[in-house]
Amino acid sequence: MAPEGSTLKESNMNLDEITDLALQLQKQTGVKVLWVTCNLFAHPRYMNGAATNPDCHVLAYAGAQLKKGLDIAKKLGAENFVFWGGREGFLSMHNTDVSAELKHMANFFKMAVKYKEKIGLKCQFLIEPKPKEPCRHQYDYDAMSVIGFLKHFGLENHFKLNIEPNHTTLAGHSYEHDVVMASVFGMLGSVDANTGSPDLGWDTDQFPMDIRNTTMVMKTVIEQGGLQPGGLNFDAKVRRESTDLEDLFIAHIGAMDTFARGLRNAVRIIEDGIITDKLKERYSSFSHGLGQKVEDGSATLEDMEDYIQQNGEPNVTSGKQEKYESIFNHYI
Amino acid sequence: MAPEGSTLKESNMNLDEITDLALQLQKQTGVKVLWVTCNLFAHPRYMNGAATNPDCHVLAYAGAQLKKGLDIAKKLGAENFVFWGGREGFLSMHNTDVSAELKHMANFFKMAVKYKEKIGLKCQFLIEPKPKEPCRHQYDYDAMSVIGFLKHFGLENHFKLNIEPNHTTLAGHSYEHDVVMASVFGMLGSVDANTGSPDLGWDTDQFPMDIRNTTMVMKTVIEQGGLQPGGLNFDAKVRRESTDLEDLFIAHIGAMDTFARGLRNAVRIIEDGIITDKLKERYSSFSHGLGQKVEDGSATLEDMEDYIQQNGEPNVTSGKQEKYESIFNHYI
Amino acid sequence: MAPEGSTLKESNMNLDEITDLALQLQKQTGVKVLWVTCNLFAHPRYMNGAATNPDCHVLAYAGAQLKKGLDIAKKLGAENFVFWGGREGFLSMHNTDVSAELKHMANFFKMAVKYKEKIGLKCQFLIEPKPKEPCRHQYDYDAMSVIGFLKHFGLENHFKLNIEPNHTTLAGHSYEHDVVMASVFGMLGSVDANTGSPDLGWDTDQFPMDIRNTTMVMKTVIEQGGLQPGGLNFDAKVRRESTDLEDLFIAHIGAMDTFARGLRNAVRIIEDGIITDKLKERYSSFSHGLGQKVEDGSATLEDMEDYIQQNGEPNVTSGKQEKYESIFNHYI
Amino acid sequence: MAPEGSTLKESNMNLDEITDLALQLQKQTGVKVLWVTCNLFAHPRYMNGAATNPDCHVLAYAGAQLKKGLDIAKKLGAENFVFWGGREGFLSMHNTDVSAELKHMANFFKMAVKYKEKIGLKCQFLIEPKPKEPCRHQYDYDAMSVIGFLKHFGLENHFKLNIEPNHTTLAGHSYEHDVVMASVFGMLGSVDANTGSPDLGWDTDQFPMDIRNTTMVMKTVIEQGGLQPGGLNFDAKVRRESTDLEDLFIAHIGAMDTFARGLRNAVRIIEDGIITDKLKERYSSFSHGLGQKVEDGSATLEDMEDYIQQNGEPNVTSGKQEKYESIFNHYI
Repeated sequence: MAPEGSTLKESNMNLDEITDLALQLQKQTGVKVLWVTCNLFAHPRYMNGAATNPDCHVLAYAGAQLKKGLDIAKKLGAENFVFWGGREGFLSMHNTDVSAELKHMANFFKMAVKYKEKIGLKCQFLIEPKPKEPCRHQYDYDAMSVIGFLKHFGLENHFKLNIEPNHTTLAGHSYEHDVVMASVFGMLGSVDANTGSPDLGWDTDQFPMDIRNTTMVMKTVIEQGGLQPGGLNFDAKVRRESTDLEDLFIAHIGAMDTFARGLRNAVRIIEDGIITDKLKERYSSFSHGLGQKVEDGSATLEDMEDYIQQNGEPNVTSGKQEKYESIFNHYI
Repeated sequence: MAPEGSTLKESNMNLDEITDLALQLQKQTGVKVLWVTCNLFAHPRYMNGAATNPDCHVLAYAGAQLKKGLDIAKKLGAENFVFWGGREGFLSMHNTDVSAELKHMANFFKMAVKYKEKIGLKCQFLIEPKPKEPCRHQYDYDAMSVIGFLKHFGLENHFKLNIEPNHTTLAGHSYEHDVVMASVFGMLGSVDANTGSPDLGWDTDQFPMDIRNTTMVMKTVIEQGGLQPGGLNFDAKVRRESTDLEDLFIAHIGAMDTFARGLRNAVRIIEDGIITDKLKERYSSFSHGLGQKVEDGSATLEDMEDYIQQNGEPNVTSGKQEKYESIFNHYI
Repeated sequence: MAPEGSTLKESNMNLDEITDLALQLQKQTGVKVLWVTCNLFAHPRYMNGAATNPDCHVLAYAGAQLKKGLDIAKKLGAENFVFWGGREGFLSMHNTDVSAELKHMANFFKMAVKYKEKIGLKCQFLIEPKPKEPCRHQYDYDAMSVIGFLKHFGLENHFKLNIEPNHTTLAGHSYEHDVVMASVFGMLGSVDANTGSPDLGWDTDQFPMDIRNTTMVMKTVIEQGGLQPGGLNFDAKVRRESTDLEDLFIAHIGAMDTFARGLRNAVRIIEDGIITDKLKERYSSFSHGLGQKVEDGSATLEDMEDYIQQNGEPNVTSGKQEKYESIFNHYI
Repeated sequence: MAPEGSTLKESNMNLDEITDLALQLQKQTGVKVLWVTCNLFAHPRYMNGAATNPDCHVLAYAGAQLKKGLDIAKKLGAENFVFWGGREGFLSMHNTDVSAELKHMANFFKMAVKYKEKIGLKCQFLIEPKPKEPCRHQYDYDAMSVIGFLKHFGLENHFKLNIEPNHTTLAGHSYEHDVVMASVFGMLGSVDANTGSPDLGWDTDQFPMDIRNTTMVMKTVIEQGGLQPGGLNFDAKVRRESTDLEDLFIAHIGAMDTFARGLRNAVRIIEDGIITDKLKERYSSFSHGLGQKVEDGSATLEDMEDYIQQNGEPNVTSGKQEKYESIFNHYI
């Protein structure tokens, strides 16, 4: 989620007028607002952080702006509200009190939760992880970092994650990694569907064009029963060199097609059940006996020792990665 | 922490005889055991995981081995017990049930905690994060991943972290990053002091030779009041090409000198107080007024709005990174 | 190309007996030898380099071994001879005379050329680039590094490149990059068709399973008119966890299918001509007028200035990346 | 070398007036011009390349601009002229004819050489490698890529390299790597002395503050007998967050001090001769007998075989990396 110019922003309309216009458009079109966000990173005042700024005056400014943003989200009936902390981190450890900054960020989020409840805003709060850029290190590094942070400060019931796979790859993971991890921890809220080039070290916000990737993402989304109230949005840009008006349409169509093919692939994979069945069988030892005790948490180390004394060395079982990959390839 | 051959392992002594020998040596020398660990990754039986193996038989084997390891730790009066999950992760998402594996790993740790309490083992449990290698992805990716995992499964009071900075850099962070993050979250237990080359993508377990790095680590250790019952150990190897017997001594002496210089630098930095004072001043707005309310968690978004309506746009304050870096350089 | 155990090596046959056996098998099956190589990296004697070893005694050993290897290549009628310099580089600049080592490596190659000519060996010499691992830096870093080296020492007419795309990605390029670059410079000799995971920093020698990648490689191979006398070989290994005998077959079949699909995609792309025509049009200004003078090297800066004085500012032309990507996706 | 705003550019002075002003300042101060360059990357017309643009009209514009730039260099008596090809590369292979682009770039450089000779411009031409950013791939990837390109097109006698170590690390090498490689190939012309953070994947153009790095660079510069007519310049920027006027001074002073300490360390290392002597001894086998024949290129593979038949297996000799590192640390 990168800062972007907008024609509205450049118009003479103020925020309330824009909100009213958006409301009107909603009524006319039936299109609802997936999410609202506050840009707490692009203005120079936020260069050293918004919620983590060493100067409380800046944090206050961010808070005032956030209050307004939440009011607008309420007015627009937004389904979600996204926090992307592009400046919540540091450029140098030498000038940073990490402990203080994390506490301020947590308290900032707590104020948001409180105000949300006060005004009866129903939307889902989402945090979007990104490892770095513009900061050298951002506290919301990846899905697990945010989960750790939220749980540490008792915020885990108030937030889910908005995963942008380009950020995931910048954190050293595979494209689908954080979508899967967030889902496993019950924290996948929404997906910002853009991509980068795996050989580049910065965020290019390209339109997703790789069907392998979209198949993996859609498979995870189906398996967790959908994303509602979240969704799939393109926070992508045509390349700076794509200057024709039609490029904007081609890019959206090409990327949407890529996700559509991914969705159809994922449905076929799940309906065929070949991979799922193989997987179920692979873990079948946990459905009975000692395995079931491990599963339900009643097993002990003494049980383990007894079991091995009776059953000895386990068999080596092939992981069969190439077989899984070959089967997966049949769906691409 | 990589698997390594050992002359003891190649001897004809069994585990109990080795333990007795170790006990004897302890009494003779007064040298205590910093930590004991179980190698749950090198044997082919663990190739698909120990606690996260899809076959419960293998998990049971790991459990039996762990029970023995904890008994030995008790016997030796070990100060810590380290878990490094080199195979707790996956090589391919296609053949992996991440959710099941994480639950099994958590339950495995819970059995360890239970047994530890049962036998009255007093040592600190430590988890050592590593992002990848041998796995494509390890669940204990970095400090924040482990913290998130522990808190999710209610294990955070039973474990601390053993940080190896070479693993930290492989996870995309700076050398000192996870030492600092673990410390900030109250989870820094011990430090495996080796290093890699920042331009390489695998674990080289080199002896640490960069004084900037050791200064940063020792500064963090001092600031959190030491590492006890943890410590600083070299889990480093001389390079495969360093074949002279003396290389082993030179490497240890050179690395120890590097940490000694780091410690002395850190002490001077802290005693001089120049950087600390600058830092205190940088965050001084949080010691009174609105800042104090943010700090203690009583501030609201409405307070923020009021403050900005009265005080307007904040001043832009330089981060002064180059000044901090230049001052830091005076201590190197 | 990693060192590997082989059942033959573990047999009691000596090198001459193995060569005779290989000859016999060739006659019986009609299968020819794509390439022969010497393992000048796995034995501890080569730990500090073979042709670049600081000790000339080791270089001599490598030379003697290479002489034998060339004799065998001659006997077997090998089509190519591959040099992979896994130890030709350095672990530390502190103990390395880069200038001397490069000169020795060049002279070593010159001896090989001379001996090849002397014995009338007809095969193509190939160098396989790899950026690092086991060394921290290998001189044959990537295609362009090897081309630069060969041209500097006047060896460019005696060698071509054997590109392994997993090595290419480790050097920070995209999968197909070095195949394309080597081809453009007239230096693509053969392809070691394995792959890695883009999120890993070491060589995993996995079987290629991504059809996008194989499409790009096969397109380049077709466009340069084939690889003869080179070829496409799998220098891949099943994952250490793929322990069933059938995994070896599945992996080869799956990867061969992936290349077959890539070949068919590439043929369709070229026969349809949509991308090719768009590309031809994109560069069409170089087929006449000033463009033709640039193309044939007769244009001058004065011509440029004249042209701009007459024609002014050029139009901005969209790169249309998303359109190209969308069209490409129709072939996947 | 990144595009930057300048107050002069924003003034109303035209290029000729600025040149005259620069000439005047030169006379007044005695400060000479290290290098002149043309910005052939920032303007949107160059978005798809300057010398490698698919549209010859754009190439012509670049040529006209270059002609003017060379005239100004002549007028100012510049010691060097730098070419940084920030747009000479590609964003996608799908829309790129790499072969054509490389040829056009070479012919563009040939025009520059021709015009330089015509107007009697005496300065050294320099190419500055950078692997990527803004392009996905830049043809001048690193030192060896440029050397390969120059030699392929017969341009190697007309150009040297301007190495920016931050670009070197982005290409996957260590900080000093390209300085050393360029020097070894006789191509080190000048050094753009800035740095990045090894954990970041984009160009941050920070002021160099690590004394290890500057020691290595200065050692190489001394060993090749200086950089004339090149030099050492800071193409660095204070961080965007360093907004005080004094930061600009502090950064320059801090970085200059870092290079000064590096220079003094390098001098001590060379004068003490401990490392140099160890290195000379390490390669001493090449100063006599078979080694000398390898050195002068007269040895053959047959000589190697004879030598090994007489002398057998070489001794394993320790690389002693940790010893070299420990000695080096004494100078930091």
